Amino acid sequence: MKVAKFGGSSVASAEQLKKVANIIMDDSDRKAIVVSAPGKRFKEDTKVTDLLIALGQAYLNKNSYQAQLDQVIDRFRDITEQLELPESLLKEIQDDINNVLASDYTYELKTDALKASGEDALAKVLSAYLQSLGLKATYLNPKEAGIIVSDEPGSAQILDESFELIYKLRERKEIVVIPGFFGYTKEGKLVTFSRGGSDITGSIVAAGVKADLYENFTDVDSVYCVNPTIVENPKEITSLTYKEMRELSYAGFSVFHDEALIPAFKASIPVCIKNTNNPNGLGTIIVSKKETGDNPVVGIASDTGFLSLYVSKYLMNRELGFGRRLLHILEDECISFEHTPSGIDDLSVIIRESQLTEKKEQKVIQRIKDELDPDMVYVERGLALVMIVGEGMNSTIGIAEKATAAFSRANVNLEMMNQGSSEVSMMFGIKASGVDSAVKSLYKSFFE
Amino acid sequence: MKVAKFGGSSVASAEQLKKVANIIMDDSDRKAIVVSAPGKRFKEDTKVTDLLIALGQAYLNKNSYQAQLDQVIDRFRDITEQLELPESLLKEIQDDINNVLASDYTYELKTDALKASGEDALAKVLSAYLQSLGLKATYLNPKEAGIIVSDEPGSAQILDESFELIYKLRERKEIVVIPGFFGYTKEGKLVTFSRGGSDITGSIVAAGVKADLYENFTDVDSVYCVNPTIVENPKEITSLTYKEMRELSYAGFSVFHDEALIPAFKASIPVCIKNTNNPNGLGTIIVSKKETGDNPVVGIASDTGFLSLYVSKYLMNRELGFGRRLLHILEDECISFEHTPSGIDDLSVIIRESQLTEKKEQKVIQRIKDELDPDMVYVERGLALVMIVGEGMNSTIGIAEKATAAFSRANVNLEMMNQGSSEVSMMFGIKASGVDSAVKSLYKSFFE
Repeated sequence: MKVAKFGGSSVASAEQLKKVANIIMDDSDRKAIVVSAPGKRFKEDTKVTDLLIALGQAYLNKNSYQAQLDQVIDRFRDITEQLELPESLLKEIQDDINNVLASDYTYELKTDALKASGEDALAKVLSAYLQSLGLKATYLNPKEAGIIVSDEPGSAQILDESFELIYKLRERKEIVVIPGFFGYTKEGKLVTFSRGGSDITGSIVAAGVKADLYENFTDVDSVYCVNPTIVENPKEITSLTYKEMRELSYAGFSVFHDEALIPAFKASIPVCIKNTNNPNGLGTIIVSKKETGDNPVVGIASDTGFLSLYVSKYLMNRELGFGRRLLHILEDECISFEHTPSGIDDLSVIIRESQLTEKKEQKVIQRIKDELDPDMVYVERGLALVMIVGEGMNSTIGIAEKATAAFSRANVNLEMMNQGSSEVSMMFGIKASGVDSAVKSLYKSFFE
Repeated sequence: MKVAKFGGSSVASAEQLKKVANIIMDDSDRKAIVVSAPGKRFKEDTKVTDLLIALGQAYLNKNSYQAQLDQVIDRFRDITEQLELPESLLKEIQDDINNVLASDYTYELKTDALKASGEDALAKVLSAYLQSLGLKATYLNPKEAGIIVSDEPGSAQILDESFELIYKLRERKEIVVIPGFFGYTKEGKLVTFSRGGSDITGSIVAAGVKADLYENFTDVDSVYCVNPTIVENPKEITSLTYKEMRELSYAGFSVFHDEALIPAFKASIPVCIKNTNNPNGLGTIIVSKKETGDNPVVGIASDTGFLSLYVSKYLMNRELGFGRRLLHILEDECISFEHTPSGIDDLSVIIRESQLTEKKEQKVIQRIKDELDPDMVYVERGLALVMIVGEGMNSTIGIAEKATAAFSRANVNLEMMNQGSSEVSMMFGIKASGVDSAVKSLYKSFFE
């Protein structure tokens, strides 16, 4: 059994939905389908979810909301008409939205229910369309599917008891079409996941039914081994592990909402990223473990906007708890850090610049001076991190040499280096100005 | 004004003390002299301090101690006779020791006073010898010199008020000879520093008198750029900074008792390591700042006996406080760590193996499992750290490349890498079995 999730661009229009139906018909194992709300059809288009958010705001501010409501209904009318679905379906969608608006829900719950109605309507549309093609298909509300979540509107978390309920979907003979992005609390309240939550639903359903494969259909053929805005036409990654995906998605790769994969990761379900517009392409598969190919490096990630907080103190390494107390100050100030490369008597903490405003910086530096009595403390901004990623690296001699040689050739000085014993990645800290040439040089060394 | 400290081998015999006297006479700036107790004259010889410790144990266990006492007195008799010093001096030394034995000191204070009597006696001998050569010289007890310390027998710490008192030594016209290794509490009790404490006294006196130079005379010509048991006849280091010295002394270099240098470091006093047996050699000078020479790398240090504690958890870097809580567990268990190289979802903590017994390992791993709910946690033993050190590295492109290439040539896999933004050192973690060939290969790359 496969779980297929179709993203916003895959369900943006009737034309796209026909592709989706073909994909579903093409493989009888695709029995559980999860859908997003219709996304953009062209660059300037507006996603249905954004229309619904605007509608909700207008309604809740007691402004006129007819324009936004019309836009939403128009999007679905276009689709249902072109797919030749009965008018009653559009009426049902319209009634659903009006019922939410007229409900006595709290502000938060009304917002969540409105946001979710895009996915909900699309699931009904797709299910009706599949039926019209002669397939056995049913719309399945997340409550019926067994998606029980915590009572946190806008950022619900799946409850463990869900998975057993979802497993029962395996008994169904027909194709089930489940709207993504939301679930129900134990008390039956509709609440949504965080944005990008259709991926979460897909991952939950895949884990619940113990799917052989979780297919995530989007609008790219696969994951590239390097940021295509830096390197033209880079190579595609055919397979990568969860760990590799995490390391890559951290710095410059935005294939996935990371948290979305947790349920699939925990259940060791392989995930495949495919293109709705080119379903026969290989795509990229994400697995728990894989054989190492010829190239131990699968990708190069990079991101700017980091700073280094440098602290030095003579005999620091003799002072039990120095590092812990430094990290405690950061935690107190709600600053999360990325890495902590260190010498004997010094420690650098790598932090995203957005985490440390100038004002907070002053406070943190003062606290470090007062509480840790360092010889020196300062902040260096404008850093970039470049990571080379691959599980095969830990058994291959010479990767670090190849990487550092690429930085030298690009004439880029290494400010920091960091590689833990997992060796899934090597991290290099450089000045942000050097990131493009460094990444190009690394790509040349490892992929050309 | 210069402060000269002479180590155990430099004052082991009359012959050596003649060299010391020549060194003192050779430079009229050498006004404050700090001495150790007589060390070994040949490989199988016993240091006077060790004889005194054995004497103290025999006495305190109420065993016969005459043999040990005779050995100590014989050592001083040999010296005073050969230096043609009056017999009354030997009598004074003997009386001093007997007075300690007969005193009503506590066990701890008696041990400290006995241990210190080697340095004390030697200072008296040297001062008398200098006088016999026609120099103006005085033995100066640490109490008179102003060395006031905390009441921690065996590990006394200097008190800040000392430095002002010591500064007054500048007013003295004669050469002062001060025994190393001990000071006096505010209440006038004699207590010793930790072992190697003559270096501490030298450093304190140099800081106190604001010396132009602190000369540390020992039995090597200089500090080598690499461990001479791994590389034959390695190059000598002519100058290095405090930071470089610290990084080197951390892993495999044992020139100095690190803590000894703190007072000199804080007062920015340059330190020179010289050979009593070759006083005209250049030696190695340790300074706060220096010009970078042709080679940005000053030395290669290495040490075995490390382990890596590896912890991984999906989305670890989103979990505010994860790193801090991990370090807190270690601190709770009194384990100090060396480095913490990290990936996105994993963290390795490098720890000296001696810090984590098998039993403690089980406890720590259980606590990590219980308190941090990781996906994986394990310990890898038998690691070595190799560090390349040099303040010039941070402005030189290609150092990492040269270093990593040397590891590849030696066919050694890098388990870990770590370089903070200070770039005084790059740390590489490898399997202990590869350390010799890696260090040889690095030496070839950077020094041949």
